[in-house]
Amino acid sequence: MDIKQTWVNFIHELQDSICAGLERQDGMAQFVEDRWERDEGGGGKTRVIAHGKVFEKGGVNTSVVFGQVTETMRDQLKIDGHQWFACGLSLVIHPYNPFVPTIHANYRMFELYDQYGATVDRWWGGGTDLTPYYLFDEDAIHFHGTLKTVCDRSDPELYPIYKKTCDDYFTNTHRNGERRGIGGIFFDHQRAEGVRDAAFWIKLARDCGDSFLPGYLPIVERRKSKNFTPAQKYWQEIRRGRYVEFNLLHDRGTIFGLKTNGRTESILMSLPPTVRFDYAFQPEAGSDEERLIEICRNPKKWI
Amino acid sequence: MDIKQTWVNFIHELQDSICAGLERQDGMAQFVEDRWERDEGGGGKTRVIAHGKVFEKGGVNTSVVFGQVTETMRDQLKIDGHQWFACGLSLVIHPYNPFVPTIHANYRMFELYDQYGATVDRWWGGGTDLTPYYLFDEDAIHFHGTLKTVCDRSDPELYPIYKKTCDDYFTNTHRNGERRGIGGIFFDHQRAEGVRDAAFWIKLARDCGDSFLPGYLPIVERRKSKNFTPAQKYWQEIRRGRYVEFNLLHDRGTIFGLKTNGRTESILMSLPPTVRFDYAFQPEAGSDEERLIEICRNPKKWI
Repeated sequence: MDIKQTWVNFIHELQDSICAGLERQDGMAQFVEDRWERDEGGGGKTRVIAHGKVFEKGGVNTSVVFGQVTETMRDQLKIDGHQWFACGLSLVIHPYNPFVPTIHANYRMFELYDQYGATVDRWWGGGTDLTPYYLFDEDAIHFHGTLKTVCDRSDPELYPIYKKTCDDYFTNTHRNGERRGIGGIFFDHQRAEGVRDAAFWIKLARDCGDSFLPGYLPIVERRKSKNFTPAQKYWQEIRRGRYVEFNLLHDRGTIFGLKTNGRTESILMSLPPTVRFDYAFQPEAGSDEERLIEICRNPKKWI
Repeated sequence: MDIKQTWVNFIHELQDSICAGLERQDGMAQFVEDRWERDEGGGGKTRVIAHGKVFEKGGVNTSVVFGQVTETMRDQLKIDGHQWFACGLSLVIHPYNPFVPTIHANYRMFELYDQYGATVDRWWGGGTDLTPYYLFDEDAIHFHGTLKTVCDRSDPELYPIYKKTCDDYFTNTHRNGERRGIGGIFFDHQRAEGVRDAAFWIKLARDCGDSFLPGYLPIVERRKSKNFTPAQKYWQEIRRGRYVEFNLLHDRGTIFGLKTNGRTESILMSLPPTVRFDYAFQPEAGSDEERLIEICRNPKKWI
């Protein structure tokens, strides 16, 4: 198996299938593609959707990029090598209706080469996580259940570890440890070793990627036509503010990408379309809004 | 002169006079005060205004805080000492009308003590800068002119240096070096030395602080009743997105405050009330919106 080619093909097929599935669900808006090239090597396909019936803003981006290992990378990624290669898919979908959760997914492979071009390191990373504005337990159970089923197929050890890594990672430490949402799975620096060879990790990523639509669309379907009040939309925009805070203050990928001359518009497509920042906004005691915050502060075992 | 007490009194008087002047200008909304204490030592008075006739959101905050020098401070501020003390005022005002610019100002004094409590270092920092959404040359000239007059009174060398420091500091490096706005003045680490003794720096900060209302209110007065279209409001919200990006990605004070357990709500009162993030938003060629971006990319000498 040509690992690199297999991975690149998988990422582009995944982009096509996810875009097609989301367009079908939306029923109105279509993705618009921006192809871009990177001076240092490689490029990407940024696909954005906006002003849909269901999806207010979203992006499903892929990139295949490579270059020299720079000082910044050595420092911040703690890597050693001469050349690097990365290929991945990154998506964020912000629905209009506050009862439909925002979703994020990212699957990527990274390779390092020595001065002769030989591969000296290779790892996979990725995950899918959900950010609801109102919490429906059945949605959380369906979402986490889908991911657990998929991970269990590869190894039942994985889901509990990846769930915890996800809860730990997507944390607004400056907001008393409040999580961005209800999590999902997240993993990084997964290397081929023993029975967990390259084929194992590619299969896991493929299974996770292919579970994106079945994990998300039933939730969208159930909630997209639910009536909402201006106050509920207001709450969604306040919570979107927390999404912005996480992405710009804490997300390693975003900060690293912007510091290393990544394509700004593709990186920041993750930011929500309309956002509010109020001073010291407090939901009412005992409200649905307050319950969401409680769950974000104390992640729950859904399965 | 008791330097510390003189400075603390000045900061609180400045907070009172600025709040009173902004309330008079708004004619409807009033500042609401939140007093807070810090476990590690000291506290602050956060004063916020919201949903005014002119001001959509704003804060004029003071704090008097002190504590042990921590590892994080040693690393990030590159300081040496046992105990520290800081007192300052920080304000951000976001008007509703897109023709009225956003303004930010900050004046602060920092002291370091050795293990016996003796003062081993002391410095001042501060500045005032303007972020218009539409550029009126006469406003920019009035704003910069006010600051230059004030700085010249202390030393004609200062304004050109502080203007450049301001342009350099408030830069969205990830947006091709676009500045947050049209600048103003910014200075940091100003220490008593020779004729520029403590009295010199306190007088400069006082003059700058006292020039806040005469530098800003005439601009507000001229623009606050100007009719605007939904498209102009939309543009303001897009530009407010850049304000968020600067504050969360680049502003040293914001990032340091949030990492060192500062009071999150007081720090993030700087974020605009309503914000939009569109993918690759482009103003029309030759438009007023495009001209603003050009000036933000290539800061102008206004005086």
